[in-house]
Amino acid sequence: MDEDLLMLPGPTNVPDEIRLEEAKKMINHRGELFHNLYKEVQNGLKYLFQTDNPVYILTSSGTGAVECAASNLVKKNDKIVVPVNGEFGIRLADIFEVYGAKVIRIPFEWGEGVDPAIVKETLERNPDTVMLAFVYNETSTGVRNNAKALAEICKKLGVLVLCDAISNLGGDELYADKWGLDIVVSGSQKCIACPPGLAFITLNEKAWRKVEDSKPHINYYWNLEKMKKFHEKNETPFTPAVSLFFALNKALKIIEKEGIEKRVLRHKVCSKALREGAVSIGFKLYPRKEEYASYTVNAFNLPSNVTDSDVKKFLLEKYGIAISGGIGPTKGQIIRIGTIGDINQKQVEKTLTGLEDCLITKGLNVKRNTAVEAASKVFKENKY
Amino acid sequence: MDEDLLMLPGPTNVPDEIRLEEAKKMINHRGELFHNLYKEVQNGLKYLFQTDNPVYILTSSGTGAVECAASNLVKKNDKIVVPVNGEFGIRLADIFEVYGAKVIRIPFEWGEGVDPAIVKETLERNPDTVMLAFVYNETSTGVRNNAKALAEICKKLGVLVLCDAISNLGGDELYADKWGLDIVVSGSQKCIACPPGLAFITLNEKAWRKVEDSKPHINYYWNLEKMKKFHEKNETPFTPAVSLFFALNKALKIIEKEGIEKRVLRHKVCSKALREGAVSIGFKLYPRKEEYASYTVNAFNLPSNVTDSDVKKFLLEKYGIAISGGIGPTKGQIIRIGTIGDINQKQVEKTLTGLEDCLITKGLNVKRNTAVEAASKVFKENKY
Repeated sequence: MDEDLLMLPGPTNVPDEIRLEEAKKMINHRGELFHNLYKEVQNGLKYLFQTDNPVYILTSSGTGAVECAASNLVKKNDKIVVPVNGEFGIRLADIFEVYGAKVIRIPFEWGEGVDPAIVKETLERNPDTVMLAFVYNETSTGVRNNAKALAEICKKLGVLVLCDAISNLGGDELYADKWGLDIVVSGSQKCIACPPGLAFITLNEKAWRKVEDSKPHINYYWNLEKMKKFHEKNETPFTPAVSLFFALNKALKIIEKEGIEKRVLRHKVCSKALREGAVSIGFKLYPRKEEYASYTVNAFNLPSNVTDSDVKKFLLEKYGIAISGGIGPTKGQIIRIGTIGDINQKQVEKTLTGLEDCLITKGLNVKRNTAVEAASKVFKENKY
Repeated sequence: MDEDLLMLPGPTNVPDEIRLEEAKKMINHRGELFHNLYKEVQNGLKYLFQTDNPVYILTSSGTGAVECAASNLVKKNDKIVVPVNGEFGIRLADIFEVYGAKVIRIPFEWGEGVDPAIVKETLERNPDTVMLAFVYNETSTGVRNNAKALAEICKKLGVLVLCDAISNLGGDELYADKWGLDIVVSGSQKCIACPPGLAFITLNEKAWRKVEDSKPHINYYWNLEKMKKFHEKNETPFTPAVSLFFALNKALKIIEKEGIEKRVLRHKVCSKALREGAVSIGFKLYPRKEEYASYTVNAFNLPSNVTDSDVKKFLLEKYGIAISGGIGPTKGQIIRIGTIGDINQKQVEKTLTGLEDCLITKGLNVKRNTAVEAASKVFKENKY
């Protein structure tokens, strides 16, 4: 029952040096020590989001940041387009509807990527659309949508674009300013390798004009204008999770030291190695095409005669490795394995050894070391 | 600039054994380890709130729990009465208005206690009132309102009652079930002596019927029905701040071990000692009457020729003690000192020594040791 290695789609393993920060003595969230901490964290977040705009920090899960966006940006009956190819696309659409938006959902099959051409066509057919909101990395299916292409389309058509990068920011390419992502939201417990409890939202001038234009807002805790005001004093409007700020600051320093390009490459290589290893022993990649396989969440259909519970239980009990099953319509159909944050070759290989061992124990015809060898090959060919 | 001792109205000093918990290895928030943790925390919270109902845990500040209550309980144009004798009474009223309530504010002077007779009369004059929402311990003024009396009035009149106990739960009497408080909200970083980042809301059957009756709710992250559903599985709907759960669990065990009655007495005696000490050297109690002075937040007008900044700066720089000034209309007029959570005689005496030293340094005619002696007398006469 020990959880030695979290290979989940989040929360992820938090490196010792990050989690030890949390045990620091408490400080006054209205004092100079906190102000300095806030400034350091801001610099780290701007680098991470690749933006010159402030990144507002919420004490909440990532979903809180999505609700923050919806409650500040939506005016009743605003037309908002949301491509949906998984559970978190549905959630995005649901949240915007709660705040009165008329949401046009573009459905894609689960396991399929969002087709930018179809999004473009939908936006053109609906010239009164005020925003496209999309999930960059669909945690429920392991599909990575083409954020850059979607941003380009919106820029051309003059439509606001919101990117939910909760499960891949810090482990995947994201250039908020360069790509023209007007609003980006994310959370602390995924590729930043921080504990859960903080969420982030950044927005540019264009998005701020929409916030202005959407008053009055039905919110209080999520009120962006208050956050902006307190940001000027290096504070948050409400008491923040101070100890998580300590951890976040350390996590961001580690990211800066590694460098984003290198960090993204590490995620990309680790996920590719995990995928090739798993596929080599009979797991089937759930995303229909390798080209939109996520760098951070890897979803697989199971070999016959093995259930998701079998695999999850075996890995946890014999190897201390925690992985996830499906959610929503894929519940019981797939397993999901994270390659997130602190991920490295050793963790990937340990997980593949566990998967192999599981299949062999269940009586499947798998040659020992097949998966690890397939992964090693990827690591050899792709240094990071 | 070191902050050695937090004598703030929150966050408060977090004992070593609590903050070290935060550094534990991360666990899966959908796994058995977390389920067991959740169950333990529930037991501790039920004891703390003195209720048999579940206590839902939010990753947010205490204000989040207030917004959670408002967004689930309010139907447009609901008449809600809010007595206002400080900043947090205003906030309570503001939040209910955001969600469409017709709020009747009963204004009391800052520094005055809420008069239950006036509340009763207001409720009787407005028989269509659906809820009374009040702040138990007004953090901005150091005034403790008569929660028990207000609850009794509401019970008699059949009006729902919400108690905001953010800054005194765990350091003051509160019996949710026995007193008939239909909804209680609080936060982690005050008298529980936990780091900030978690908030709590508990509600009884009567309040749940109002939640049902107030659909559709304009919320997602704050959705109580989702929390109830996940509570059945010992989980939260959205990824919680897992490391703060570790800390909370330890903090609640400490509370159970000390016993609530004893803990409340400790807060009561420490605040009384601090008040008598401060008053003995020329500070003036900001609450108009001693009888409604808070057990946890102590507010004082300053002796002449001394400013709030003088005192705050002196205490921080010479003693490493952090205290607060006023907020809103009392900004610059008062200082506020917390006697919260881990508070003890030594901390109170150290603070009084600092206050004395400050006044003497500023040239005021104060005899050394006056304040500490006044406090010692209180501690001698009131064992805890």
